[in-house]
Amino acid sequence: METQVILVNGGSSSGKSGIVRCLQAVLPDPWLALGTDTLVEAVPASLEASDGGIGFAPDGEVTVGPEFRALEAAWTEGVAAMARAGARVIVDEVFLGGAYSQQRWQKALSGLRVLWVGVRCDAAVAAGREIARGDRTVGMAAAQAALVHQGVSYDLEVDTTHAEAMDCARTIAAHAK
Amino acid sequence: METQVILVNGGSSSGKSGIVRCLQAVLPDPWLALGTDTLVEAVPASLEASDGGIGFAPDGEVTVGPEFRALEAAWTEGVAAMARAGARVIVDEVFLGGAYSQQRWQKALSGLRVLWVGVRCDAAVAAGREIARGDRTVGMAAAQAALVHQGVSYDLEVDTTHAEAMDCARTIAAHAK
Amino acid sequence: METQVILVNGGSSSGKSGIVRCLQAVLPDPWLALGTDTLVEAVPASLEASDGGIGFAPDGEVTVGPEFRALEAAWTEGVAAMARAGARVIVDEVFLGGAYSQQRWQKALSGLRVLWVGVRCDAAVAAGREIARGDRTVGMAAAQAALVHQGVSYDLEVDTTHAEAMDCARTIAAHAK
Amino acid sequence: METQVILVNGGSSSGKSGIVRCLQAVLPDPWLALGTDTLVEAVPASLEASDGGIGFAPDGEVTVGPEFRALEAAWTEGVAAMARAGARVIVDEVFLGGAYSQQRWQKALSGLRVLWVGVRCDAAVAAGREIARGDRTVGMAAAQAALVHQGVSYDLEVDTTHAEAMDCARTIAAHAK
Repeated sequence: METQVILVNGGSSSGKSGIVRCLQAVLPDPWLALGTDTLVEAVPASLEASDGGIGFAPDGEVTVGPEFRALEAAWTEGVAAMARAGARVIVDEVFLGGAYSQQRWQKALSGLRVLWVGVRCDAAVAAGREIARGDRTVGMAAAQAALVHQGVSYDLEVDTTHAEAMDCARTIAAHAK
Repeated sequence: METQVILVNGGSSSGKSGIVRCLQAVLPDPWLALGTDTLVEAVPASLEASDGGIGFAPDGEVTVGPEFRALEAAWTEGVAAMARAGARVIVDEVFLGGAYSQQRWQKALSGLRVLWVGVRCDAAVAAGREIARGDRTVGMAAAQAALVHQGVSYDLEVDTTHAEAMDCARTIAAHAK
Repeated sequence: METQVILVNGGSSSGKSGIVRCLQAVLPDPWLALGTDTLVEAVPASLEASDGGIGFAPDGEVTVGPEFRALEAAWTEGVAAMARAGARVIVDEVFLGGAYSQQRWQKALSGLRVLWVGVRCDAAVAAGREIARGDRTVGMAAAQAALVHQGVSYDLEVDTTHAEAMDCARTIAAHAK
Repeated sequence: METQVILVNGGSSSGKSGIVRCLQAVLPDPWLALGTDTLVEAVPASLEASDGGIGFAPDGEVTVGPEFRALEAAWTEGVAAMARAGARVIVDEVFLGGAYSQQRWQKALSGLRVLWVGVRCDAAVAAGREIARGDRTVGMAAAQAALVHQGVSYDLEVDTTHAEAMDCARTIAAHAK
C-alpha cells in the first residue's frame, strides 16, 4: 500500500521547506508540495493584522482568528480532495494548535494513507537559522520549536539540528514507499 | 445566489495577478486566491524542462507534459472541493488549451456558481509590461495574448490595455454579488 | 557628450522600477541599475524599526534615522565612484527630503553628466497599483506622491498615470544620448 | 585599528549569505552587505545568456563575458569608495577566477583594512543544500566548491559543513574588531 500524503509538521525555521524540496527531488514519482505558506499567500493581505485573520506580532507570536480559520478548514478539505483525486501530496504544516491541529488534518485525510512526520530542531539553532535566512519575524522559531509538537503523534521524526535536509528527506522517502 | 468562484483567465503579463489582489481588497468577504502560479510552485522543480513536465522555452512558449497534466487534474478537483467546503475562491488561470482548458474547469466546478472573467491586454502592451516586471521569460506575453482566449466564453471581460487593475477589479466585484 | 548617470526620482509605486528595467532593455549600452531598494536591502535588518535606522509605519510613513543616513551618505559616494570608474548608472531614488535629497546627490555626482528625471503618478492611481502589487505597505504611495518632488528640478519628467513604462523609458532614452 | 571591509568568499550554496546576515546581527555597528548577487541583480537582464554578459549553463557552469567584467570593475571601485567614505562593508563574493579575482579586489581595496574570509563547504553537502533551497541552478554548488578557493589566501577560514551560520559569524566577528 503506497503512501498518498506525507504530512510534515515543524516550527518556523526548523528546516521543513528544505526537506520538502529534497523529498520532491528524491521520491521517484512527482509529488505536489503544499502547506501553511501556500495558504498564507492565498488569503487576502487584509487578513494580516486584522482581528479575524492571521497576525505576526513583533515578538514572533502568531495569532489566528475565525476568518482565517474558516478559509483554512476549506483549504484542508481541498488538499485532501487532491490526494483522493490521485495526486501524491506533501503537506508542510505548522501545528500551532498541537494535537488539535493534527485531529483537524486526521479528520480531513480520513481513508488516505498518511505518513506523519515531525521535524524537530533545537530552539537555539532554529533561532540562529531564522536570523541567517533573514525573511522571517525574529522570535517565531523559538516560540514554535516545542509548541507545535505538543500532543502530536508521528510515524517518524527527524531532527535537523545536526542533520542535513537531504539526509532527512532520504530517511522520510524510505518510509514513504 | 452568491458567486462561489471567480475564474479569471488571461495571458502572461496581462495583469491578472494585480486584478486578483485588488479583488481581494474590494470584495466584502475574504476570498482565497489560487492559480497557475500556485500550481507551478507546488510541482517538483525537476518537472521543469523534463519531457513530462512543464517547460518554458527561451522564446516564451510553454509546453506541458503528461506528468504535469496529471497533477493539474487533481489540483483542479481540490480547488473545486475548497469552494464546495465553503471557501470563496478566485482562480487565476492561463488557458493554454483555450476552450479545452475551460471545459476541464467547467467539469470540475459543476454545481458551483462561477463567474467567468476574461482579462485581455493588447499583445504589444503586455510585452512591454513583461520587460518592465523583469521576472518572466520574454516572449510569453506575446505568445499567449490571443491564444488563451480562443473558444473561451465569459460572463465578463476586462481589458487592462488602458484600464487600471483596481478599476477592473471593481467592475468584476460588481458582478460577483 | 554622453550621459553618465540617469537619476530617476519618484514616489513608491509610481512605476520607477519598471521604467528602469525598460531603460536597461532599450539603451544601446549596458547600464547598472541601483537605488533606494538596493540600499535598504544592504543595511542590517536590525536597522528597520530601530530609532537610528529606517522605519516603515503601518500608515505608509517612512522615517529615517542617523545610522541609516550615515550608510546612505557613503553609498551615494560609492555609486558616484562607479560612474567615475566608467559604468553608466541608472539611480532609482525616492527623495523623501525633496530638494535637500537632490542637493545631496548633486554634490556627490559633481563633474558627471547627469540626466535628472522625475516620475510622476496621480496619487490615487499609485495607491491602486500599490494594492495590485501586494508587496508594499499600503499608504506609502499616497504619502510620497507629491512629497518627493517638492523643490526638485528635472531635465525631464514623465507621468505614468496614463503612459506605459516602456513608453516612458523610450522618452528618457531619447534624452540620454 | 578597526576592520573596514570583511570580504567573504565562497562557492554557491556554501552558506555565505546566511553568515553575512548573522554578521550584520552580531557586529556592534551597522555594516552594509553587498556582493555578487547585488551586482547580478543590477546588470541588465539582457546580459544574461548574451556572449558578453553572464551566463548560467544548465549544468551549473557560470561564464562571464567582457561587458559584465567592465561593469564589475566599476562596481568594485565603487564598493571600495563606500568603505573609504566611512561605511563598514561586508562583501559577499564568488571568486570564479580564484587568485586573479582576489588580486582584483586587493587592488581596489588598497589602503583599507580588510579581513579576508574563506567560506568552505563540502561539495556534496553544498549540492544537497542547493536542492533544499530550490532557487539556484543545480550544479553550481559542486562546480564552485573548490574552484573559488584556488590560490586565494585568507586571514580566516570557516567551514559550514558541520557549523551553523551564526557560529561562523561569531568567529568572524571576533576577528573583525
